[in-house]
Amino acid sequence: MPTLADYSQGAAFVRGQYLPIAEAAIPITDWGFLRSDATYDVVTVWDGAFFRLDAHLERFARSCESFRLDPGLSCAQITQVLEECVRLCGLRNAYVEMIATRGQPPWGSRDPRQAVNQFYAFAVPYVWIANEAQRAQGLNLVVSDVQRIPASSVDPRAKNYHWNDLTMGLLGALDAGGDTVVLTDGLGNVVEGPGFNLFCLNAHGVLVTPAQGVLEGITRRTVIEIAQAAGWPVEQRTLPVAELRGAREAFVTSSGGGVLPVTQVDGQAVATGLVGLVTQKLLDTYWAWHRDPRYSRAVVYG
Amino acid sequence: MPTLADYSQGAAFVRGQYLPIAEAAIPITDWGFLRSDATYDVVTVWDGAFFRLDAHLERFARSCESFRLDPGLSCAQITQVLEECVRLCGLRNAYVEMIATRGQPPWGSRDPRQAVNQFYAFAVPYVWIANEAQRAQGLNLVVSDVQRIPASSVDPRAKNYHWNDLTMGLLGALDAGGDTVVLTDGLGNVVEGPGFNLFCLNAHGVLVTPAQGVLEGITRRTVIEIAQAAGWPVEQRTLPVAELRGAREAFVTSSGGGVLPVTQVDGQAVATGLVGLVTQKLLDTYWAWHRDPRYSRAVVYG
Repeated sequence: MPTLADYSQGAAFVRGQYLPIAEAAIPITDWGFLRSDATYDVVTVWDGAFFRLDAHLERFARSCESFRLDPGLSCAQITQVLEECVRLCGLRNAYVEMIATRGQPPWGSRDPRQAVNQFYAFAVPYVWIANEAQRAQGLNLVVSDVQRIPASSVDPRAKNYHWNDLTMGLLGALDAGGDTVVLTDGLGNVVEGPGFNLFCLNAHGVLVTPAQGVLEGITRRTVIEIAQAAGWPVEQRTLPVAELRGAREAFVTSSGGGVLPVTQVDGQAVATGLVGLVTQKLLDTYWAWHRDPRYSRAVVYG
Repeated sequence: MPTLADYSQGAAFVRGQYLPIAEAAIPITDWGFLRSDATYDVVTVWDGAFFRLDAHLERFARSCESFRLDPGLSCAQITQVLEECVRLCGLRNAYVEMIATRGQPPWGSRDPRQAVNQFYAFAVPYVWIANEAQRAQGLNLVVSDVQRIPASSVDPRAKNYHWNDLTMGLLGALDAGGDTVVLTDGLGNVVEGPGFNLFCLNAHGVLVTPAQGVLEGITRRTVIEIAQAAGWPVEQRTLPVAELRGAREAFVTSSGGGVLPVTQVDGQAVATGLVGLVTQKLLDTYWAWHRDPRYSRAVVYG
């Protein structure tokens, strides 16, 4: 008699089948692995509802188009798969990832156009990119010497797994006693970190976030919308390291935790070294919007 | 009664087990996939013998060190695994890949140092990066506008799966009617293509191959050694696109086929448009070295 599958740690959709996350695997020959020829997106479920699912699906479709990948499913079908993954694991707070890979062409061919693209998805417990203490005290962000892969090589607006620069930068930052890392464009401007965008409230009281060479994060967009609704000026442009160091406040944005305060840069306090008032207001509103029906879509757990 | 496993299409080593290639898969949660946090190497078996296995194992060890990955096996143990993969599929000509991935840290952690690294391997039928007609007539190589990921972002000497730039460049080249692609450094110099290094015999009769921003290919090294043994000058330095276009001969080097003639660049004939004499001599000697016991190690098929 087969035992009932245990989905408590997460559920995945792989080759048309739903599986417990621990059993979910991709073929070792999929170019999604062997050439990192893939795109993905991550949407969260908070308190039983997807947050801004439409925005994530739209971006995923654009990413697929940019890399000439066809997930083979409509947005409505992807939504069904994601909901089923969440339903199976029953998580009220979940991190839900959708992935399109190149798959593989017929044996011997090296032509990506001949490959049968694949779609994968999974839901796992909500991921925080900072732990509870870090969220309360604020992160110590290290500015790395590693340069983010430039847009002339890989389109940063199409979400991708080209993270070696972020990973090597993160290892250096952790070794140096930091909490996380931000990379630069090699010209003295900060760009983005592993899974997040960066903002600062500069010395003139203007919110600034890098515009070039970054993923256009949905949380980043949410923060910009919240700020605009509050009448606070936001500038999307290059952000010199010096401007970040001299800022009144700083924070990072990610689907993995929303608005996360940064209170130190390279171990030096940002202004007073305390979580700023503007940061706190954005953080509170970010979570309040999760209860707004304009942005949330309840999961039917059945 | 279990049926006998069919290894005829290839054999893989995954999580301590040998499996037919079609059944070999990596956990969807392995950062080797989700962050392309991995390194690899490819060695070939030709006519029943590994070619320059020691050189590939040495480079794999250096790549692992560069990315702070621990395959968990010694070179001798890796050799045993690779041999067993070849033995199981029985292939006399094989493409044999070894892979180290980050694995994954304990759930909730984002610290790569806490991950348990993984080792995978597989042997499949020999892969040619050019088909028979292309090898006879020479390749039509397209110079892409896409810039190869720079060394300031990702160490190109540590073999990695960051191929989006190569893949997007290849798609553009195929669409334009070319056979394959070479990327540039964004400064007018050619660098490398998907899975190969590039050489030309320039207008002065000197062999030139790019030195910066490229993988130090074992086939590239073999060609340099053959040339040096023949007393032919070789320059490892930046190679301007114009110098390639004005060359007497050109060819690419890869474990996936050895020395492969290039007879057109962007559809324009290189010199006469025929496979050159120096290219042919290097090609012949490359294959002759496969029978040289200094470089080959017979597989015991049992």
